[in-house]
Amino acid sequence: MNIRAVFYYVGHVLRIEAALLVPAALISLFRQETAAFWAFVITIAILAVVGQGLVMLRPADRRIFAREGLVTVALSWILLSAFGALPFVISGEIPHYVNALFETVSGFTTTGATILTDVETLPMGMLYWRSFTHWVGGMGVLVFVLAIMPLSSGSGGNVHLLRAESPGPVVGKLVPRLRHTARILYTIYVALTVIEIVFLVSGGMPFFDSLLHAFGTAGTGGFSLKNASLGAYSPYLQTVVAVFMVLFGVNFSVYYLLLVRDFTSIRKNEEVKWYFGIIICATAIITLNILPLYQNFGEALHHAFFQTSSIMTTTGFVTADFALWPELSRMLLLLLMIIGASAGSTGGGIKVVRLVILLKSIKGAMQRLLHPNSVHVAKLDGKALDGQVTRSVHAFMVLYFLICGVSILLVAFDNIPTDATISSVLACLNNIGPGLGLVGATGNFSTLSILSKITLTFDMLLGRLEIFPIIMLFNPSVWKRGK
Amino acid sequence: MNIRAVFYYVGHVLRIEAALLVPAALISLFRQETAAFWAFVITIAILAVVGQGLVMLRPADRRIFAREGLVTVALSWILLSAFGALPFVISGEIPHYVNALFETVSGFTTTGATILTDVETLPMGMLYWRSFTHWVGGMGVLVFVLAIMPLSSGSGGNVHLLRAESPGPVVGKLVPRLRHTARILYTIYVALTVIEIVFLVSGGMPFFDSLLHAFGTAGTGGFSLKNASLGAYSPYLQTVVAVFMVLFGVNFSVYYLLLVRDFTSIRKNEEVKWYFGIIICATAIITLNILPLYQNFGEALHHAFFQTSSIMTTTGFVTADFALWPELSRMLLLLLMIIGASAGSTGGGIKVVRLVILLKSIKGAMQRLLHPNSVHVAKLDGKALDGQVTRSVHAFMVLYFLICGVSILLVAFDNIPTDATISSVLACLNNIGPGLGLVGATGNFSTLSILSKITLTFDMLLGRLEIFPIIMLFNPSVWKRGK
Repeated sequence: MNIRAVFYYVGHVLRIEAALLVPAALISLFRQETAAFWAFVITIAILAVVGQGLVMLRPADRRIFAREGLVTVALSWILLSAFGALPFVISGEIPHYVNALFETVSGFTTTGATILTDVETLPMGMLYWRSFTHWVGGMGVLVFVLAIMPLSSGSGGNVHLLRAESPGPVVGKLVPRLRHTARILYTIYVALTVIEIVFLVSGGMPFFDSLLHAFGTAGTGGFSLKNASLGAYSPYLQTVVAVFMVLFGVNFSVYYLLLVRDFTSIRKNEEVKWYFGIIICATAIITLNILPLYQNFGEALHHAFFQTSSIMTTTGFVTADFALWPELSRMLLLLLMIIGASAGSTGGGIKVVRLVILLKSIKGAMQRLLHPNSVHVAKLDGKALDGQVTRSVHAFMVLYFLICGVSILLVAFDNIPTDATISSVLACLNNIGPGLGLVGATGNFSTLSILSKITLTFDMLLGRLEIFPIIMLFNPSVWKRGK
Repeated sequence: MNIRAVFYYVGHVLRIEAALLVPAALISLFRQETAAFWAFVITIAILAVVGQGLVMLRPADRRIFAREGLVTVALSWILLSAFGALPFVISGEIPHYVNALFETVSGFTTTGATILTDVETLPMGMLYWRSFTHWVGGMGVLVFVLAIMPLSSGSGGNVHLLRAESPGPVVGKLVPRLRHTARILYTIYVALTVIEIVFLVSGGMPFFDSLLHAFGTAGTGGFSLKNASLGAYSPYLQTVVAVFMVLFGVNFSVYYLLLVRDFTSIRKNEEVKWYFGIIICATAIITLNILPLYQNFGEALHHAFFQTSSIMTTTGFVTADFALWPELSRMLLLLLMIIGASAGSTGGGIKVVRLVILLKSIKGAMQRLLHPNSVHVAKLDGKALDGQVTRSVHAFMVLYFLICGVSILLVAFDNIPTDATISSVLACLNNIGPGLGLVGATGNFSTLSILSKITLTFDMLLGRLEIFPIIMLFNPSVWKRGK
């Protein structure tokens, strides 16, 4: 592997992080948050030095291939978090590094799980940085999933991609094309964020609050600057956020197709139909199920839609303590956690399109059982499904459940109730944020042990980067020079 | 499909059930349990008439192929249970038919989940019949898994089979070969059962109790005639049962290989190594985890081994209320529930060999990711793993988790705690018996709603018959005449 090129690009990423910290530093400066300000300045200095140092390695050969791309992404996410946690530690806001790392990984992976028991006491600069990591993470995910992953054929069935931009598995120079794809995605991403801010501000939310919640929505992250999350705001504002969560959970290639007016391709897109279908069905079931708990149908529908949207898109904002809802709603939300949002969105989970492919592969297996000699070709969006894609999705699912199992055992050492044990793992592995019970809407992850926090930190990274890249980091053969 | 032939063979099965009910009727006669006696007699009469009627259909063509075999098995299990439940209803011991059906399906599928709150009040004839269904079910499973399933290639990776007897997917006349295979299996099965009875009786357990517990162990069922299950007996007797549970969870082809002294094949068998490895590791972890709850190391080891053996083999006997154990042990047992015993044993679950194949397929996917053009051939027991087998295992897993999800939602309507909701589904789908909490070692399934009981009854059948045959019954194209 071209290790020097990997470090070169990671160096670039760290220099960018230094720049991204500047607004937070300025906010702390203006708000006279001295400790926070210096924490940001020190971190910026460290990042600039380390980043510049890595960039100065200047590899002889700057071309990178799919493998280098995956390793660069995995390393970037880990190092962004490792350095991004420093301001919290240096300023003393989150003294323990493992906690700060948990919070920052939760930010960059757009999970939104928090170890803070009272976010409202954080300095404004820190609140800004915490939410901004969601927005940056969401951007990174879009480029990663839509531009880098398709270059590696075994990476888990990213079939819904900006096909115009990334014509399938091609091994070669990826940087130029990546730049072009990224520009389109960022434009859509920024535009949607700005529109949400306008809607929130016009509904009476302060600008700073609007900005931070828009960051959290866009990245499908879920950090709020209120302890009550969206529960602290009016139903109108909650509805705006609920609608935008749904929008950010849609495959971004659909927006691209909308821009180029390719309505035929959109109509053929099966994932979009399933995505909206699941949201509508789940909202309906939960509304009926929680009806007795609320004053009227409208209120039940409001909370059911907000929570369905928040969990399905893996954002994790809350308006109601759904842990107190009946078991049917709780279990339905747990299943939505696993499904997650669309591929090619900022959301997490196993993704709707994988679910669709899995269902189609069952149909194929049944056909083979009845007619052993028949050839059954599964189709997605009107095109034949490649056996390679199906196999990758299966391998992904197996790994997914394996990681679930191991993580549940590690968290079980904490001896907390079963709903919290299982849902904490699902909430982190699927990048949602809050789980049920102890780690639910009104709880947080602060009481968990170091072992659990480290396990869950790993789960957030594994979930965000679709498992394979992180596992690759631990494969010695990846680190061999040359080849 | 040759529907008349299917009914012909099902008719045979029902006639056999009539005969199997005779010992229970005799026990009730000698014990002067009048209501129970007449209930058995009436049921025997009904079975004889219906069975004889079906047999008299006399199909022109008696040959059946894989598809007919699978449908015959699925229908047999359902009808055996439907009629086998009658004695409980007619005698008034279990007045509600849904409850009686749950109990009987639980028996024939060797699950061992019960809706009875006080088994000790049951007449002896009924107790005998209830446990005997385990033994009959276990016999049926062996023949089904080792003789019928391999004939259908898409049925889920039964790779560890009596290879000498069933040389892979061959479509043709299956009855003659089936008879031969069945004879060998039954001999091993009966011999092991008799040896267990001898060990139990010599340890001071009454003969009737020994017989019934041997039935429960052999079928990896788990019905006991005591409310405290094995907790009512001495540590020696518990240990005997624990050891025999492990033995009945081994792939029966291993015993066959032992008989023909083919030690090379046994050494190559990876499933056996994994099976014993998992039992040893789980026992060790649980022993250390529950150490503070017991007087000394020996006692903790005793309960840890018994419960690991009971859950892993999906038997479901209990000596201790493991719901009160620490979360780590609880979650570990939950995962063991999912893994289950070996393929080709009387145990349930997804089976150890499927886990091994899944792990190997992950390795293959990682290899493809790193070296897209390399060819990676996974091997099991030293032989190359057929792509068809891997694909079937994947399809099985997808269906498995899909059924889990739907069942959990249906049981969630009961609004019971999360550990009971999830574990009741796992306990039934994997044919274990007791779950955690409400449906755990000291609880039972009596308080669940009709909807949950029907859902779980289906889950028991789906789990026992490895999903596909039951789903086939609902496929209209299977029921088309001819072809």
